[in-house]
Amino acid sequence: MISGRCAACKNQRRRCPSDCIFSPYFPANDPQRFASVHKIYGGSNVGKMLQQIPPYLREQTANSLYFEAQCRIQDPVYGCVGIISKLYEQIHNTEIELAQIQTQITCHKLQLLHPNNAETNFNLLPTAEAQSNFQIPPESNNPPQFQWPNQVPWFN
Amino acid sequence: MISGRCAACKNQRRRCPSDCIFSPYFPANDPQRFASVHKIYGGSNVGKMLQQIPPYLREQTANSLYFEAQCRIQDPVYGCVGIISKLYEQIHNTEIELAQIQTQITCHKLQLLHPNNAETNFNLLPTAEAQSNFQIPPESNNPPQFQWPNQVPWFN
Repeated sequence: MISGRCAACKNQRRRCPSDCIFSPYFPANDPQRFASVHKIYGGSNVGKMLQQIPPYLREQTANSLYFEAQCRIQDPVYGCVGIISKLYEQIHNTEIELAQIQTQITCHKLQLLHPNNAETNFNLLPTAEAQSNFQIPPESNNPPQFQWPNQVPWFN
Repeated sequence: MISGRCAACKNQRRRCPSDCIFSPYFPANDPQRFASVHKIYGGSNVGKMLQQIPPYLREQTANSLYFEAQCRIQDPVYGCVGIISKLYEQIHNTEIELAQIQTQITCHKLQLLHPNNAETNFNLLPTAEAQSNFQIPPESNNPPQFQWPNQVPWFN
């Protein structure tokens, strides 16, 4: 049925069978979605990957493949790894920031216990700027150098 | 030269030309590296992607493709997106934690300014547990449900 072909079958100019592996996840009204995964993985690889997944998880699989393909198209050098690298950097900076806050709080506790031995300096206490590191990083044309593989310690 | 073939040319059972696009990034002594990207992207797609990148960035590209391929092999449903999802969750939890610390600090500043109007309760101040969210998440067989696409706000 030509008129009911999914985006994958339209792209590949073939008949769309009733049990098409692509059809539920690559609808005809979003041809760019299939074009993206086709460009990065190749259509047959996407089909193979979906076949190996239980049906109830195929939508999540198609979504994550599309996300990774879009990342790779936008950033052909780093792809998703560029995002992971940025998030690690953000977490690292915040670890430092939290450690500084902990130190300042400890100092302040000591001041409260011994008020006569130290000046009470309210400026030592951190303010709302401490949250500034949590801004989502903007898309950048100069992604940070990806350190390989130390930056992702659980990766084998 | 059969004996000097790179991992890609060995895998594809072909002659390895002197200007082989794979050779610098997929050495013969690490056949699993090429096997991984070949399984996920297909060898010819990897070659095409490398060709489109300036030579000085090809090593980073091969590394990130290998990383993403390994992620997809380990987690066929979520791949790299599973890691991104975990990191977002970690950042979200820490945002909440930092906001709580900010509130506690503000309360404590008020106590210092007006010591007679409030009890000094040292237990209100956060302790070192505040850093506990920064543990690298262990590899899990049950990755969190990836919310699509709200969890990655800058993704178009």
